[in-house]
Amino acid sequence: MALVVQKYGGTSVKDAERVMNVARRVTNTYKEGNSVVVAVSAQGDTTDDLIEKAKEINPDASKREMDQLLSSGEQISIALLAMAIEKLGYPVISFTGWQAGVLTDSKHSAARIKRIDTERIQTELDRKRIVIVAGFQGINKYDDITTLGRGGSDTSAVALAAALHADLCEIYTDVDGVYTTDPRICKTAYKLNDISYDEMLELASLGANVLHNRSVEMAKKYNVKLSVRSSLNDHEGTYVKEVSKVEKMLVRGVTRDNDCARIALCGVEDAPGKAFQIFEMIARKGISVDLIIQSIGDGKTKDISFTVTEGDLQKTLDLLEENKEFINAREIKSTSDVSKVSIVGAGMVNNSGVAAKMFEALYDAHININMIATSEIKISVLVARKDAEAAVIAIHDKFLLK
Amino acid sequence: MALVVQKYGGTSVKDAERVMNVARRVTNTYKEGNSVVVAVSAQGDTTDDLIEKAKEINPDASKREMDQLLSSGEQISIALLAMAIEKLGYPVISFTGWQAGVLTDSKHSAARIKRIDTERIQTELDRKRIVIVAGFQGINKYDDITTLGRGGSDTSAVALAAALHADLCEIYTDVDGVYTTDPRICKTAYKLNDISYDEMLELASLGANVLHNRSVEMAKKYNVKLSVRSSLNDHEGTYVKEVSKVEKMLVRGVTRDNDCARIALCGVEDAPGKAFQIFEMIARKGISVDLIIQSIGDGKTKDISFTVTEGDLQKTLDLLEENKEFINAREIKSTSDVSKVSIVGAGMVNNSGVAAKMFEALYDAHININMIATSEIKISVLVARKDAEAAVIAIHDKFLLK
Repeated sequence: MALVVQKYGGTSVKDAERVMNVARRVTNTYKEGNSVVVAVSAQGDTTDDLIEKAKEINPDASKREMDQLLSSGEQISIALLAMAIEKLGYPVISFTGWQAGVLTDSKHSAARIKRIDTERIQTELDRKRIVIVAGFQGINKYDDITTLGRGGSDTSAVALAAALHADLCEIYTDVDGVYTTDPRICKTAYKLNDISYDEMLELASLGANVLHNRSVEMAKKYNVKLSVRSSLNDHEGTYVKEVSKVEKMLVRGVTRDNDCARIALCGVEDAPGKAFQIFEMIARKGISVDLIIQSIGDGKTKDISFTVTEGDLQKTLDLLEENKEFINAREIKSTSDVSKVSIVGAGMVNNSGVAAKMFEALYDAHININMIATSEIKISVLVARKDAEAAVIAIHDKFLLK
Repeated sequence: MALVVQKYGGTSVKDAERVMNVARRVTNTYKEGNSVVVAVSAQGDTTDDLIEKAKEINPDASKREMDQLLSSGEQISIALLAMAIEKLGYPVISFTGWQAGVLTDSKHSAARIKRIDTERIQTELDRKRIVIVAGFQGINKYDDITTLGRGGSDTSAVALAAALHADLCEIYTDVDGVYTTDPRICKTAYKLNDISYDEMLELASLGANVLHNRSVEMAKKYNVKLSVRSSLNDHEGTYVKEVSKVEKMLVRGVTRDNDCARIALCGVEDAPGKAFQIFEMIARKGISVDLIIQSIGDGKTKDISFTVTEGDLQKTLDLLEENKEFINAREIKSTSDVSKVSIVGAGMVNNSGVAAKMFEALYDAHININMIATSEIKISVLVARKDAEAAVIAIHDKFLLK
């Protein structure tokens, strides 16, 4: 007998039929003799609908009241799931975030879980009840309702698993698990059986969209064994754990991220600290800079290129325009017609041939590389957006073809 | 400067425009220098929509989970109203039932408020904030969410007014106040300026549909001054208080209630305690009997007639059928083709001519009286349903024509 935490996202509970489907999955796990705690998101479009309602009244509503509003979404889904499980004849009880003892800091709309007082949940598990918990939400020390921000239900599930010392945390979603790359782009993509926390972190932040980053960080910190799998079939998913099985695979996945734009500052004064001052100015505006390259410079001027998200492009250009006398560049150029393609794998740190092999794949496919960035477990290149899908396929098949 | 509690029902906040309208009313009261606490119901059809969602999944869902589900409705409306008030530039904070300290017993779906821990509300009032509280809901001692049942938001408002020692509790609704009778039936009906708690109780229970009975009982118990008025205009409403201004009006209102059905047990054995045993049997099934008349009897058999709500008719007939050997009636007859028409007024207790005048009005209108019941401040008659509206008009104009 094990303690299993399951998480079901909004699409998994979007209507009555799907709710009954989840109820069957939950009770199947319970029938096998497990204790089951379930974290649930709001149904389908509920959250977006509530945001729409709020905007109609006040587009600048306080975050506290937004949290008060949005947290009702999961309150609806937990009650409905509990009712579905009652219908199947199993003992069950639902809890909102505060009822489940989920205590967070006070950062409304992006709160972090500080701890979970599991007493009430534990009591109900001891009574052999299935426990349903509202994901995405908690309360701060003033008893104000908080929400955890996008992907927060994953984090709720992992935090519950950590606090309850669960044997496994299953994240149910609408895909079968973590793939070597996006199967919609690359027909030869396939599901990984397991992956390390660090690899998953890189894949998640690069746009794999399967697991939220913060939940993976928390799983790593508390050594929670995760499983990512589909709520629509019984296929084995992907396990995320401390060390992935040693396989002869340097590279575990290929990702593409279209949410980037490149800015080039041409002919900037080549003085010590100049680049640093420019990037500090950008950072102070809350804009994240991703890839950066500088030309070597001729002692007088140099070129600086960097990427930001597409959404930050105009804001960044405005900032540069406001400070153009300080920056004193010959020309400022920008394009959002670029994509970032990355490979991820814990194995590549000790293998200097990986980058060369990646570049060879791109060269063979006649794809130009714009910028390059490397870390211990990933290599990213910036390519023209029109080439991005071809780049993913070329790289995937070079490294990962089965 | 006064402390005012206001209550707005579901139709008053049914969409963004109505929510902004309520926000303006609330802030107008605040601008006049008052402390303001607002109890709000769920928007328009939200509660019914949630019930529909639940039924689709499990028509026999537990009441605990129904309360968990339904309480989300007011959580949405309090957040939206707070956002609307923020938009107008006033300090505001919203509270769910539990955040407001509304403690109830554990009778899910029909809980009673035991007390309100007003500390948090008081703190926010001291900070000069407008406080919005979810009506209809609270928590029990296990931290489970409870709801107060139909009309519960009125009760929430009165309980808040009592706990906070408010100077006035204003119940905003979609009518201008308490009328002498239903203006849709009787063109000569007019609004009362004030009415006593006892009179209001009789009017409410007789179907006036303006204020929920339990809220009036509570207002009487804690001597909360109530005002019933429209959220759509600035007309003075009706004050409900301990003693209504002494007016030369014996009768304050005429009501009609179609939700009744009559059952006649003909030829029942005329033995001591027989009727009592039959009514006890009915009461044990949770069925409320309203009017009762017995024929005098001839020492052997007698006839017993009584009324129940239309919804309880079939259940009552089934029960009588199951026990027909014990009841041993010659015949059991029933009809739901009846209505109860009543007059209410604290003045009638000392005036024996009132009943006669009422019967005269009905006689003049050629309306037959089926059954009669009187109490200190009301007289009810049962008439054929087709005659009910004519009866209301005849009686109203006999007693109340201006």
